[in-house]
Amino acid sequence: MKSSFVSRGLIYLITAISIVLAGLRCSNNPATTGSSPADSVQKTTSDPLPSWNDGAARQAIVQFVHATTDSGAAGFVAPEERIATFDQDGTLWVEHPIYAQLIYCFDHVGDVVRAKPELKNVQPFKTVISGDRSAIAKLTMPDLEKIAAATLTGMSEDQFRDDVKKWISEARDTRWKKPYNELAYQPMKEVLQYLRANGYKTYIVTGGGQDFVRVYSEQTYGIPPEQVVGTNAASKFGYDSAGKPFLTKTDKMVLNDNGPGKVEGIQLMIGRKPYASFGNTPGDQQMLEYTKSGSGTRLAVLVMHDDSTREYAYGPAQGLPDTKIGAFPQAFYDEAKKNEWVVISMKNDWKRIFSFEP
Amino acid sequence: MKSSFVSRGLIYLITAISIVLAGLRCSNNPATTGSSPADSVQKTTSDPLPSWNDGAARQAIVQFVHATTDSGAAGFVAPEERIATFDQDGTLWVEHPIYAQLIYCFDHVGDVVRAKPELKNVQPFKTVISGDRSAIAKLTMPDLEKIAAATLTGMSEDQFRDDVKKWISEARDTRWKKPYNELAYQPMKEVLQYLRANGYKTYIVTGGGQDFVRVYSEQTYGIPPEQVVGTNAASKFGYDSAGKPFLTKTDKMVLNDNGPGKVEGIQLMIGRKPYASFGNTPGDQQMLEYTKSGSGTRLAVLVMHDDSTREYAYGPAQGLPDTKIGAFPQAFYDEAKKNEWVVISMKNDWKRIFSFEP
Repeated sequence: MKSSFVSRGLIYLITAISIVLAGLRCSNNPATTGSSPADSVQKTTSDPLPSWNDGAARQAIVQFVHATTDSGAAGFVAPEERIATFDQDGTLWVEHPIYAQLIYCFDHVGDVVRAKPELKNVQPFKTVISGDRSAIAKLTMPDLEKIAAATLTGMSEDQFRDDVKKWISEARDTRWKKPYNELAYQPMKEVLQYLRANGYKTYIVTGGGQDFVRVYSEQTYGIPPEQVVGTNAASKFGYDSAGKPFLTKTDKMVLNDNGPGKVEGIQLMIGRKPYASFGNTPGDQQMLEYTKSGSGTRLAVLVMHDDSTREYAYGPAQGLPDTKIGAFPQAFYDEAKKNEWVVISMKNDWKRIFSFEP
Repeated sequence: MKSSFVSRGLIYLITAISIVLAGLRCSNNPATTGSSPADSVQKTTSDPLPSWNDGAARQAIVQFVHATTDSGAAGFVAPEERIATFDQDGTLWVEHPIYAQLIYCFDHVGDVVRAKPELKNVQPFKTVISGDRSAIAKLTMPDLEKIAAATLTGMSEDQFRDDVKKWISEARDTRWKKPYNELAYQPMKEVLQYLRANGYKTYIVTGGGQDFVRVYSEQTYGIPPEQVVGTNAASKFGYDSAGKPFLTKTDKMVLNDNGPGKVEGIQLMIGRKPYASFGNTPGDQQMLEYTKSGSGTRLAVLVMHDDSTREYAYGPAQGLPDTKIGAFPQAFYDEAKKNEWVVISMKNDWKRIFSFEP
């Protein structure tokens, strides 16, 4: 539970949480509802992107696929080189009012205290289990680091996987009352499927926890655990009392998968330059630059959250409300336009946002 | 060029080199012969393992594949869970008299000195470029660390990839006068192909350098770079003078992929427990234990080098000659037998060893 763990890496996860906390309601965690979120992949009959309106963003994606996969195309890419990388929070699923992984951390403070009752009277755990919202809202950055470290490290990999699996099937968000992985964007799931149908290997490259996202990535996005690159600390090999080998999650940082770290993570885990990358914040900038620096036809795409009715609206680019989570500054928008990156308007480009919408 | 780089990780690569060096002849590096090593995959008509003699090892491999992939088999494994991991040096290709990557390092001291002429009179570079074999044989461990660091770090990832690509196409080993990747074992290439034909994803999990092996893994073994897990140091993102992003190979260790590190590397890069693992030394022990600790049918296999005529013979298990590179101790052999790991006898189990044999 060294605070160095989080301060060196999971800072991404706790960005501005102290500000957001005041308005955050705890997620429900009903132990009785065990529904498994369905991966509602669209049937791709003639239209591979049925949840998209016809517009510049949709056209750019379709043109990219044709330009790189049609036999005889000048930009044809050999199948083994077809790599596409996707940020997760705010790009593949909802990141407001706060990252789902942080909800997980708060939801698991109770488990941590049950396992180590001596923490019951130790801060910040005492405050969290008290349920006193005004006190919780005042937690400091070092407090939040302790919570993240206590709920994300120290247990076996198997135990953590079981915990996340249970949580993702039981926890519900407060606005739509859905499992978090039903808050994956249907149009983006169609893009993933469309790229895979054309020979692309799809990867998640997330600032979130690699082990966390791996638990539900296959079920949610059709992306297997070995194609999830994320912020991660080392695991440590050892034997249990029966001599059986197992791995423990430590607090020794391996990869801070955000900003330049996303490109370093792509090198570490993939070893090839992507042909297409999708993101939504300056934390994805280097990944998009790296992608576009390759030869031939490359695609860089950003999701802009401009739909206050169906999802959320935040910038501050283009006059959208400012935010501490997933900010999209005007300078970043200008950079995107200058570099000919595609900017998706959720409001205008997406016919529907979630699979559970009619 | 901090020596901490090698002492923390690439120790694997320099094991006992000072002892072996005395007998080591430098590889030829003819700039004129640009042949590309062919990946001679056998046609799998009826027999998927034509280079294997019928015996316990072959039978165990075939039985494992049937037990985990035949529909209706009690041990049937879902296709997405089919992961098989292979050590490289001594398991997939020749490791005697010394690891190929070390030959690469020695072959590139000249390039390093050309790029930084001030090193010409600095030890150990002065000794290496002198060609004085008795002086080279006396190089110390810190000397060797400096050579490894100078030839494996500090350059861009692109430059390193180009250098290795050129080397693997031009360098020849001293015994067979072949490119090093033609020294891949034909029976093991058949196992890789056989597993893939049955839905297995095949990975290399090597103590050698991840970036090094990735350059030739697809051409040699049909294993793409993203399925190579190896010892690696971090890459660092930056921009060149024209503003183009690129990655530099640093000396900051990320993964020492040997012994327990192999299991930690599997967790980092794959996130699933393998169903089959292949190795040849105690550096593979934890990977095999981890594999066998899973439920259902699992396969653990060791290659024993007992063929002094067609390849090399070294143990010291079973009375074979002792060695400093790739030792297979008697205690490890006993452990393998106790745990029902399959031990391949190169002499008895392999009909032919290399694709270039008749």
